[in-house]
Amino acid sequence: MKISELSRRTGVPVASIKYFRRQGLLPAGRATAATLAEYGEEHAERLRLIKALTTLGGLSIAATREVLGAVDQAHTTEGALGAISYALPVPVASSAAGVDEDGDAEAEEAAAAEVAELLADLDWRAPGASPHVRGLTTALKELRRLDAGYAPGELAAYARLAESVARLDLERAECLDDPLALAERAVIVFAICAPVFELLRRLAQEDRVRRRLEDADAAGAPSGCGPH
Amino acid sequence: MKISELSRRTGVPVASIKYFRRQGLLPAGRATAATLAEYGEEHAERLRLIKALTTLGGLSIAATREVLGAVDQAHTTEGALGAISYALPVPVASSAAGVDEDGDAEAEEAAAAEVAELLADLDWRAPGASPHVRGLTTALKELRRLDAGYAPGELAAYARLAESVARLDLERAECLDDPLALAERAVIVFAICAPVFELLRRLAQEDRVRRRLEDADAAGAPSGCGPH
Repeated sequence: MKISELSRRTGVPVASIKYFRRQGLLPAGRATAATLAEYGEEHAERLRLIKALTTLGGLSIAATREVLGAVDQAHTTEGALGAISYALPVPVASSAAGVDEDGDAEAEEAAAAEVAELLADLDWRAPGASPHVRGLTTALKELRRLDAGYAPGELAAYARLAESVARLDLERAECLDDPLALAERAVIVFAICAPVFELLRRLAQEDRVRRRLEDADAAGAPSGCGPH
Repeated sequence: MKISELSRRTGVPVASIKYFRRQGLLPAGRATAATLAEYGEEHAERLRLIKALTTLGGLSIAATREVLGAVDQAHTTEGALGAISYALPVPVASSAAGVDEDGDAEAEEAAAAEVAELLADLDWRAPGASPHVRGLTTALKELRRLDAGYAPGELAAYARLAESVARLDLERAECLDDPLALAERAVIVFAICAPVFELLRRLAQEDRVRRRLEDADAAGAPSGCGPH
């Protein structure tokens, strides 16, 4: 198909398709003339994935390139999942704290110990070099600095819910025969369904806040912290 | 305290403090000379919150300004939570799909119906105008276009877990006496703990992938989709 048809089929403007081509995200079409190229179904599929990653997933062009590279090189379910998980941007980069790396060794050590203890309690396997371990360490350190650290047991309660979510994720990512299809599915689950869960969480928060407001109105009293 | 001391206490470079001042995020200090100002404890506190929102929370300057405005205007728990929840950037903006708003009314309607049914089933209260309802509608539409929509019941399973997470969130956000302290806590829970949960989910995914790899190695066979 021509680039105009590819654009119509995927909903991606021609200028964006050309941009993705120049950025090396989309393979070249088959040249049919000096300025014309013919694109196939595989281009449409790849383009839909690029669009999903950059819009829904909110990934940068650089992160999208890395994730697509992981997709293309994955040969097994686990290989794909592992590579993609590490290729995706970490929610809290360990450089996020940024400005005061030194002079802060004690807080860093305390947070690292908190993470190590959590992982041991849950029997989760993750090397210290995992970007997720480092990200969590940074986040806990900063939350404590804001006097908003987790109470004992609170983080574990969140972690157990995260485990249930991850179980659903893996079931969704598994059991596709074609490795490429599987890798693409894994990308979608890992990169795009995270925002979906966050939206569900926000909706649930909204519902709970609304109920409290209505209860407060019904009681005719300013609401406060009742027993719960 | 002088700006240099404020910088030392908060770990925010002097140049960044001046930038936040110019952007209207941080109130002016008390002028003590033409080029000198005196800052107080409230500046340090506000600066720590700005730093947390922009680094850990990943918020833009504009989003940070909006969230801080909601914090300053909140007088009750629920007011603070509601205002902040709506002021935070939505994970999937409804403009994310962007390029093909028209000609797509059918898919949009189907996704909106899916969301409405989910909310009714869960008895969650949220108006159609809620940015979270619109974000979820966009996400579901795009996932379906990628042939990666949720199977019946799957989204509800995620939603129930999200409800449990939101319950923990609200407990963490509640029960501070000072409205400003409460609003700040709410910001932290809503804006910063979302990345923490996402990291926990990634770690849980990582653990499950690792276990599958080890099981596959132990069995000496390429792993596939066994019963689960």
